[in-house]
Amino acid sequence: MDAEGPKPAPTRGPLVAIGGAEDKVGDRKVLSRVVELAGGPGAVIAVLPVASMIPGQLAATYESIFESFGATVRIVRVRTRADADSPEVLATLDGASAAFFTGGAQGRIVTLLGGTKLAQKIRRAHRAGLVVAGTSAGASALCNHMIAQGRAGYAPHRQSVTMAPGLGLTKRLVVDQHFGQRHRIGRLFAAVALNPYLMGVGIDEDTAMILDAKNRVEIIGNGTVTIVDGGRILHTDIHEVADDRPAALLGLSVHVLTAGHGFDVETRVPTWPEGPEWIAAPRPSPEPHH
Amino acid sequence: MDAEGPKPAPTRGPLVAIGGAEDKVGDRKVLSRVVELAGGPGAVIAVLPVASMIPGQLAATYESIFESFGATVRIVRVRTRADADSPEVLATLDGASAAFFTGGAQGRIVTLLGGTKLAQKIRRAHRAGLVVAGTSAGASALCNHMIAQGRAGYAPHRQSVTMAPGLGLTKRLVVDQHFGQRHRIGRLFAAVALNPYLMGVGIDEDTAMILDAKNRVEIIGNGTVTIVDGGRILHTDIHEVADDRPAALLGLSVHVLTAGHGFDVETRVPTWPEGPEWIAAPRPSPEPHH
Repeated sequence: MDAEGPKPAPTRGPLVAIGGAEDKVGDRKVLSRVVELAGGPGAVIAVLPVASMIPGQLAATYESIFESFGATVRIVRVRTRADADSPEVLATLDGASAAFFTGGAQGRIVTLLGGTKLAQKIRRAHRAGLVVAGTSAGASALCNHMIAQGRAGYAPHRQSVTMAPGLGLTKRLVVDQHFGQRHRIGRLFAAVALNPYLMGVGIDEDTAMILDAKNRVEIIGNGTVTIVDGGRILHTDIHEVADDRPAALLGLSVHVLTAGHGFDVETRVPTWPEGPEWIAAPRPSPEPHH
Repeated sequence: MDAEGPKPAPTRGPLVAIGGAEDKVGDRKVLSRVVELAGGPGAVIAVLPVASMIPGQLAATYESIFESFGATVRIVRVRTRADADSPEVLATLDGASAAFFTGGAQGRIVTLLGGTKLAQKIRRAHRAGLVVAGTSAGASALCNHMIAQGRAGYAPHRQSVTMAPGLGLTKRLVVDQHFGQRHRIGRLFAAVALNPYLMGVGIDEDTAMILDAKNRVEIIGNGTVTIVDGGRILHTDIHEVADDRPAALLGLSVHVLTAGHGFDVETRVPTWPEGPEWIAAPRPSPEPHH
């Protein structure tokens, strides 16, 4: 294990992990921010509905939304691993300023893309500035260590979570989505307990975290993002408890963040908006000299 | 606010907060431990079904269980505040080695007992060694600051939780019950955010925490007890967010404990069972002299 991890390239594009069910009809805070990060009107967004069994329908939905913000959309059509190695499919990414992974099943993304030229091309483009965004399953798949599946519920169990290799766009974070809505804190606790090198990021629906090139996280949207930092775990028995027993997990640091709050992955310190300014009352005038 | 809090009397009896739905037909780990703490066979347990609207039925259930462990049971019958000041009712506590509060609604316990001679007698007897136990609503009511009601869900809100004065048997802890089962982490986070002096204790069903006279917590039973320590909170906006918005809460320490684990309320440090003993391999014999 690489305890420090390589520093991200200063040219790395923003990584946007969305907790699913982002607003698609109102002010669309989260999706409009994706377009803004990709350059605003004139952005070229490659939509990858790879996770979904209804890719055409999802692609049309996002195409219409992104175009309403002035972006151009390209649909990346991958139905087989051969598609993900084909020059025609790879070419759809040329000149894109963002890649957007829809929801579905994260296992589909990595089994179709893992080890292909398309995955490699996205990683390289990301290091050179491509915005990479994903919602729901698409958010989970962005990380190097991915939550493949898991059980709902509060208490962490040895079998709360199954991990699998993801797309590898960030090494230190493990993302979970539909977080509060689907009661997933137990499986995020379990993921962090299994390897405290990872920082858990639990993202609510209609909420996103944006990771910048300096490994700083910013929160946008209407819900919460929960950071579970296992760096100071004192003890856990998750590797030795019986399958039907809850595990103990001592010394977690937890930060519940909302829009305007952030987190520095390098220093593991959260950030928050400045408080009200302290306005000093005017000083009394000095006594006049007599 | 009393930042340190008075040290507990060395003669203070154990306080047993049970998360509700404790096993009543199997090995009954939690309830048998209450009897054991109260002196084992020969214990005299005063059962207070004050929280319940079906007090007779609950009293009969616990009477039968405690008697099966060799204890003598007295039912404390309180239907009005006048009952809680009457010499006959107060006398049922004389010679008891434990008081046991059943479930129901914690608001009923404190509105019936708050400020009465019965509440005062229980507090005094507890300081002198009486075991005081409560399950579900009965667990919530034990603390000085009580969760009166709240909303389920993950994200903490300003209105996630309503606090009220409880029986005052411990000052530093705020207890929630049916914790994992009813998705109550948001309201425990909110309770701790509102006053980081308090340490949150979320107790699962069929699980209990035992607080001893030295303010050390021990966990028993089949589920988890979650300690939420707000002593190092960096920032929260829970006092200023709109009612419909989630609050941010940065810098929580969280410990998920199971049976065999514990927590020292004075030092805020969790404890865990010792690991496997390191058995040194026998040293090779020294070379014989020639």
